Amino acid sequence: MDEKVGKAKRGIPSKKEDFNSWYPFIVEAADLVDKRYPIKGMDVWRPYGWKAMRLIDAITHREMEFTGHEEVRFPLLIPANLLQQENRLVALLKRAREEGVDPSELRLDEDEAGFEKEVYWVSNAGESELEIPMFLRPTSETAMYTMFPLWIRSHADLPLKIYQIVNTFRYETKQTRSFIRVREIHFFEAHTAHVDEAGATRQIGEDLEIVNRIMHDLCLPVIMARRPVWDTFPGAWYTIGIDVVMPNGRTLQVASCHHYRDQWAKEFGITYEDEKAEQKYCHQTTYGMSERLLGAVVGVHGDDRGLIMPPAIAPIQVVIVPVTKKDGADEIIAACNELHTTLSTAGIRVKIDGRDMRPARKYYDWEIKGVPLRLELGPRDLADGSAIAARRGGGKKALVISNIVTLVNQELSEIADWLRNRAAAQHSDIIKEIPRISKDENGDWSLDAEIDEASIYEIAFDGSDAEAEVIELLTGLSFLGDATEEYPEEQYCCISGKPTKRRVLLSKSY
Amino acid sequence: MDEKVGKAKRGIPSKKEDFNSWYPFIVEAADLVDKRYPIKGMDVWRPYGWKAMRLIDAITHREMEFTGHEEVRFPLLIPANLLQQENRLVALLKRAREEGVDPSELRLDEDEAGFEKEVYWVSNAGESELEIPMFLRPTSETAMYTMFPLWIRSHADLPLKIYQIVNTFRYETKQTRSFIRVREIHFFEAHTAHVDEAGATRQIGEDLEIVNRIMHDLCLPVIMARRPVWDTFPGAWYTIGIDVVMPNGRTLQVASCHHYRDQWAKEFGITYEDEKAEQKYCHQTTYGMSERLLGAVVGVHGDDRGLIMPPAIAPIQVVIVPVTKKDGADEIIAACNELHTTLSTAGIRVKIDGRDMRPARKYYDWEIKGVPLRLELGPRDLADGSAIAARRGGGKKALVISNIVTLVNQELSEIADWLRNRAAAQHSDIIKEIPRISKDENGDWSLDAEIDEASIYEIAFDGSDAEAEVIELLTGLSFLGDATEEYPEEQYCCISGKPTKRRVLLSKSY
Repeated sequence: MDEKVGKAKRGIPSKKEDFNSWYPFIVEAADLVDKRYPIKGMDVWRPYGWKAMRLIDAITHREMEFTGHEEVRFPLLIPANLLQQENRLVALLKRAREEGVDPSELRLDEDEAGFEKEVYWVSNAGESELEIPMFLRPTSETAMYTMFPLWIRSHADLPLKIYQIVNTFRYETKQTRSFIRVREIHFFEAHTAHVDEAGATRQIGEDLEIVNRIMHDLCLPVIMARRPVWDTFPGAWYTIGIDVVMPNGRTLQVASCHHYRDQWAKEFGITYEDEKAEQKYCHQTTYGMSERLLGAVVGVHGDDRGLIMPPAIAPIQVVIVPVTKKDGADEIIAACNELHTTLSTAGIRVKIDGRDMRPARKYYDWEIKGVPLRLELGPRDLADGSAIAARRGGGKKALVISNIVTLVNQELSEIADWLRNRAAAQHSDIIKEIPRISKDENGDWSLDAEIDEASIYEIAFDGSDAEAEVIELLTGLSFLGDATEEYPEEQYCCISGKPTKRRVLLSKSY
Repeated sequence: MDEKVGKAKRGIPSKKEDFNSWYPFIVEAADLVDKRYPIKGMDVWRPYGWKAMRLIDAITHREMEFTGHEEVRFPLLIPANLLQQENRLVALLKRAREEGVDPSELRLDEDEAGFEKEVYWVSNAGESELEIPMFLRPTSETAMYTMFPLWIRSHADLPLKIYQIVNTFRYETKQTRSFIRVREIHFFEAHTAHVDEAGATRQIGEDLEIVNRIMHDLCLPVIMARRPVWDTFPGAWYTIGIDVVMPNGRTLQVASCHHYRDQWAKEFGITYEDEKAEQKYCHQTTYGMSERLLGAVVGVHGDDRGLIMPPAIAPIQVVIVPVTKKDGADEIIAACNELHTTLSTAGIRVKIDGRDMRPARKYYDWEIKGVPLRLELGPRDLADGSAIAARRGGGKKALVISNIVTLVNQELSEIADWLRNRAAAQHSDIIKEIPRISKDENGDWSLDAEIDEASIYEIAFDGSDAEAEVIELLTGLSFLGDATEEYPEEQYCCISGKPTKRRVLLSKSY
C-alpha cells in the first residue's frame, strides 16, 4: 500500500516505459539541479547534486594523485588566434587523411582553417571592444599547449602529467539535458607529454585502468571502443571512447582518451632535448570526463521510486529515522544521536531525519534521493540492542548496534555489489548481434531484420569507411568503433563475407 | 657563505627596499603561477600555487560545513536583463542616500540605471548573435536572487545559507598583480537569507568569527572596518571590509561582509510567509573572499630567501633531504623513506628530495617555496637515532626519530605561532596616529606633518562625508572606515575638536 501512495505522491514517470520523461523529472525531484535558471542548458547545481559531483571529483583527484598527475588551473578565456592554430591543425589532418599522405608533407592555405567551432565569444568588456576577441574554453588544448614549450626543455621534464577540473562551454544547438548535454560543463581534463609514441601509448593504458577503477566505484559497466576515423577527436591519431549504455539503449560517452602522437607538438612547437642533445617533438595524450558520469549514475541505477546512489558517491550513505511514540521519544532520539556520532566518526556520511512527520513520509523523501541505506530505530529495536536496516534496493534486516560500523560498511559494500551486478546484467542484455547485412542483385544493401534502436549491436566488420557509412544509413545507428577486445576466433565480415576478428560496435548515441 | 651564494643565484629583489619588485618576482620564482599566458591579468596556476589555494579552500569548506552553509554551483553566465535590475537597485539606493529619503519612496527613470560595470560580455556563440547578451559573473547576487524566490516559501525555509567557490571576472583597467588584482578571480561567496534584520546581523557576526578562524590558520592579522557610506558595496546597507596590511603599508581587502537588509529582496521579490501567514521580505547578507588571501600570505610572510608558508596551507609541510656519501647511501635512503611513511601516515604533507645534487642547492629550492620545516638525515644523525630539523625562519635542532610525529607537529605549531607573532608585530608597527589636521584663518584645511604612505593611520573623527573627503584629498589616503572597536574613552575629533569615541582608519589601499 505504502508503495502505491508513494508513487502517486511523487508522480514519477515510469522509467521503463518512458525513460525520456523519467530522467528530467528525477534530476529535479531528487534536488540534484534546478533547471529554472533563465539560460537554457545551464542548470543550477543544488547542494545535494553538487555534493554527489564533488564526491565523484574526489575519486578523480585520488586517481590523479595515485598516478602522479599534478593539478593546475588554466584561464577560462582563450585568445582567438590560438583557435586559428588549432583549426589549422585539424584541417591539415583531415586533408592528409583524405589524400592518404603524411600530415607533415602538407601546407595549408589560410582559408582552409575555418571557425566552425561552437564556442561562446567574448568581444567586449565594460564599454570597450577587445583588441583580440576571446572565447570560453570548450577544452584546453590550445591554452595549455601554448605554455608547454615554456615548461618542457629536456627529457628530464618528461613525462609531464597535469590535469584540471573546470567549467567548460559549448554552444549546444541540440536539445539540452541535465548532465548529458549542457552548455556549461563541469569537466575534467588530463594532458600529458612524453618522449615518444610508446610513452604516450602507455599513458592511454594507464588512463583506461583509471577509468576502470572509477567505474567500479560508480558501479557502472562501460564499453570501450576505438572510435572510427571520422569520429576521432580533432587533432588526434586515435580516440578511445568510453560509453555507458543508458536504459533506453542509447550510448552516453562519459570519458574519452586521445593519442595525439606528435601532431599537436608540431603545430605548437613542443620539443625537448633528448639525451644526445637533439631536439625532438613530444608525443601527447589527453583524457577527459565530465558531469555525464553523474548523468549515467542517475540513468542506470535509478528506478520508479527515485535515484539509487552508489555508496562511494552517495552524499548521504545512511539516513537514521527515529521511530518514536510520545512515550520514550527522548531515549530514542538520544540513541539515534549516539548512532550518528559512532557512524560519522568512522567516516560514514550519515544524517538523522528528526523532522516532525510520519516515518513513511520520510522514507519516500530519502528514497527519491537514493540514500542507499536507512536505519530505523524504535523502542523495540532499542530494547533488542539493534537497528533495522532497510536497503534502498529492497531487503530489511536487524543490525546489532554494538557492532554497527562493521555491519553498516558491510551493507554498503553489498549494496555496491548488487548495483554492479544489476547494471552488468542490464548492460549485457542490451548488446545484441546485428542482423545480417547483404547486397542484393541490384547492388543495393539490405538488412535482414528491423533494427531495435534500444540496443547496441556488435558486428564482424572489415570494410571501408564508405561501407561503414552504408551501414550507418541502413541501420540508423552510429559506429561506436572497434571494441577493445577482438573476437577470439575469426568471423565472417557482415559486408564482404571475408574472415575477420574485428568486433565493431554500433549504437544510437546521445 | 651559503646564504650569499643562494641570494645571488636566486636574484631575489630585496623585500624591504623594493616590495613592488619582490612580490611579482617571488610568485613566479616559487612556482605559484606563470604569468606568460597570452592574456594580461590571467595567470596560469602551477601545481604548487594551486595546491596552496586548494588548501585555503579546504579551510573555507571546513568553516562552511561547521556553520551549516550548503555548497551550490551557479552558472557563470548571467543574462543582461538581470544586471539592469541590479543597476536599478544601486541607482535607487544612491539617490535615496543623496536625497536623505527611504529607498522605497523613490521611483527611478529608465535611463538612471546605467551599465557602468566592468564586465566581460558574451554576445555571440558559434556563428549566431545571442538574443539576450550575457556577461561573465563578477559576483553572483543577480544570478542567485533570481532563484531565491523559487526556493524560499515560508519561514521554515529560513535561514537559507549557501556558498560557492568559483571563477569570477572583472575587466580590470588598473595594473594587474598576481592574486591581488586579476581579471579571472578564484572567488568564494556565501549568500544568506533571514527572517529579519536581526537574523542577518547575527550572520555578519558569525562571518567575522569565521574570518578570525581562517586568519588564525593563515597567521595573518587583519583590520576589520565598517566602510564609509561611499565605499559600501552596491545594494548594501553596510559593508565590513577585512584588510591585511602589506609590508609596503598598503591595505589589501581580502574579505568583506555585506548586510543587505531587505533592499535586494524588494528588488527581486524574495519573500516568505511568516507564522501568521503574512508575506514578508527576507533580510540578506553576503560574505566574500578570494585568492587575495594567498597574495596576503605571500606578501606578509615571505622574506629575501623566498616564501614562508603557514603550516596549515603549506603544500609541503616537511621536506626530507638525505645527506649521503657514497658509502652507506642505501641505508640513509631507506631511513628517509621510512620517515616519509611515518609522517605521511600521520597526515603530514611530506616530500623526499632525492635529486642527485648537493644538499645546499636543494635547501635553496625549498626555501624559495617556503616549506616550513626541513629534515636532514645523514649517517651521524641516523647513528644517533635523530634527524636535524631546520626551520624555514631559522633555527636548527635534533629531533628523536622514535617520537618524530609528535615532535614535527610541535615544530609546525611553533612555526605557526612564530609567523603569527612576527606578522602581528609588523602590523602594529604600521598603525600610527595621524598627524593633526586643522583649519587655518582662511578656512583652508592643513596638515601638521607629512604623511608617510607606508603606514595606516587611525584618527578620532566625527565629521561629515564632505569633511572626510577633505581629509582624503589632504592626506592622499582613503577611509578604510570605522574600526570595529571604538576608543574606550572619548577623544577630540581631528576636524571639529568635539569629543567622540569613533576610531576611523585611513590607508593607501590596493
